[in-house]
Amino acid sequence: MFNSELKSILADEHLSVYSLLRYCMGWEDINGDKISSSSGKRLRPSLCMFACDAVGGDIQSAIYASASIELIHNFSLIHDEVQDFDEIRHHRPTLWSLYGSQKALLAGNIMHVISHDIFRLSGDREFYHFRPASKLIGNACLDMIEGQYLDILYENAQSITIEQYLRMISLKTGALIRCSINLGALIGTTNRDIQNQLKISGESLGYAFQIRDDILGIWGQEKTTGKPVGVDIIRKKKSLPIIHAMNANHGKYSLELREIYQSENIGDFQVNRVLEIMDNVGTLEFARQMTKKYTKKARVAFLNARLNDVHTKNYIALLQFLMNRDY
Amino acid sequence: MFNSELKSILADEHLSVYSLLRYCMGWEDINGDKISSSSGKRLRPSLCMFACDAVGGDIQSAIYASASIELIHNFSLIHDEVQDFDEIRHHRPTLWSLYGSQKALLAGNIMHVISHDIFRLSGDREFYHFRPASKLIGNACLDMIEGQYLDILYENAQSITIEQYLRMISLKTGALIRCSINLGALIGTTNRDIQNQLKISGESLGYAFQIRDDILGIWGQEKTTGKPVGVDIIRKKKSLPIIHAMNANHGKYSLELREIYQSENIGDFQVNRVLEIMDNVGTLEFARQMTKKYTKKARVAFLNARLNDVHTKNYIALLQFLMNRDY
Repeated sequence: MFNSELKSILADEHLSVYSLLRYCMGWEDINGDKISSSSGKRLRPSLCMFACDAVGGDIQSAIYASASIELIHNFSLIHDEVQDFDEIRHHRPTLWSLYGSQKALLAGNIMHVISHDIFRLSGDREFYHFRPASKLIGNACLDMIEGQYLDILYENAQSITIEQYLRMISLKTGALIRCSINLGALIGTTNRDIQNQLKISGESLGYAFQIRDDILGIWGQEKTTGKPVGVDIIRKKKSLPIIHAMNANHGKYSLELREIYQSENIGDFQVNRVLEIMDNVGTLEFARQMTKKYTKKARVAFLNARLNDVHTKNYIALLQFLMNRDY
Repeated sequence: MFNSELKSILADEHLSVYSLLRYCMGWEDINGDKISSSSGKRLRPSLCMFACDAVGGDIQSAIYASASIELIHNFSLIHDEVQDFDEIRHHRPTLWSLYGSQKALLAGNIMHVISHDIFRLSGDREFYHFRPASKLIGNACLDMIEGQYLDILYENAQSITIEQYLRMISLKTGALIRCSINLGALIGTTNRDIQNQLKISGESLGYAFQIRDDILGIWGQEKTTGKPVGVDIIRKKKSLPIIHAMNANHGKYSLELREIYQSENIGDFQVNRVLEIMDNVGTLEFARQMTKKYTKKARVAFLNARLNDVHTKNYIALLQFLMNRDY
């Protein structure tokens, strides 16, 4: 249902740039032939529709909002890939690697326009929510970009605290995830208490999700993530594990790690040394505890909303899955 | 009035990226100190408010729509400059040349979000127009990006006809200019006939504006345009003059011009040769006639709307100015 709406939105046949969008969404191959490929987790629209359903709303009313969020997410991925020179996403070549960065940036911009413009296509019932929903989506989008901006600032920073890092991910990744749940709750109910508990839950889920991503960026296996072990070390990402290792034991390894991050290229030797240091200071355990802490917060807030058993059970299962996922 | 609204929208003090936006708008220097610099012609918001006023509407109702269009225009400039490696706009260093392309692209994206999100800030009276206005702005934005996409495709095309070129500029430049007038008329009146005549006028104005730009890109003087003579030749732009020169006299100079455009660097010698060829085939006169033709169409359509004398006189003066401008 959600996918067919989204496909019809991106079905414009007369504009060649739309074929780039359909490729990016995982619906077509590079020749424009239909495929049934892995097209990502669709986590954000699923959360939005789930939340709407869970609070007793009509899931149909949340379809355009969900599509909007999924398009914002994809627009940001397309631009990120250009900036990071990422050549692969979900085991497929990225847009810019196939079409060049100019066309990829424009394709991302088209997706961005459509994401904001999408409510115009919605029915009157959904349009009723337009103003508050547009406020949530607009702010989430601004937060997300501010987070990307902070991320760039941090790349060149000498040292970053875990608090600074948490603020950055709460914007860069958290904004869109908590917006997904917020939006579903907003569309589905007028009960402020329930909206508020789901908002808190979404906030914690955002942290848990990104920290699990950071764990996979260091210890994830290539066959499940599609990326080599230690990819975030190779790419010199200032993710939670490296920040933890730099700050742990009163900064004992800080200088050594900083020197590795400042070297031109990072090879197997350096990756192994960083992994060794992380092992020494218990980084993996620390990151796992953080994921656990935020997953628990997300669960408690959802329980506080006192929704029906089926939805509560499903949400807790989702949290478990996200906390333990390998990709 | 318009400027103060726009300034308050971009006044967010706690986000460092907003200072990039204020720099880009010409309100602040690189240190964040207030300046009164040339900040562009503000053609699009002026057209929007003028059209609203001319059809008898309340100019106040058009302020947010005007701000939205101006922000879309600036977002597209910021991204264009990154892609074209332009280092100067309106005699000032461009954003990416000061802050790098990553930050500039993000600043452009923030401006893009705000441009779509702006109606939320508007009063209820303006919100009444939200749906049709959002449709116009959204479509104009999509058209503009499609035009940018065509422009990239044309860069590598062997030959382009004048018809293809006109279609490209009607999207890339025309879309936002005709949207400005359309939107003002839509907000200011319910009279379909008047709206329609202004729409036709805006369409022709868009062509005239871009063709004048193309003339200045070849024959403009550095002291007024801020760019060297023949800048579009140096940058191998496929603008109207070069397309005319390639197609003129049954393509007599087509091969020679194509060879010049395929050479690694274009120096004074080649620029002068291209100017000589354009002289031989009467390119400047052709382009001037095109500007004149579209300016006339724009004037006739406006006259057909039968608005009051003062507005008609002002609009005709604006057309004259745009047709003859040196910058």
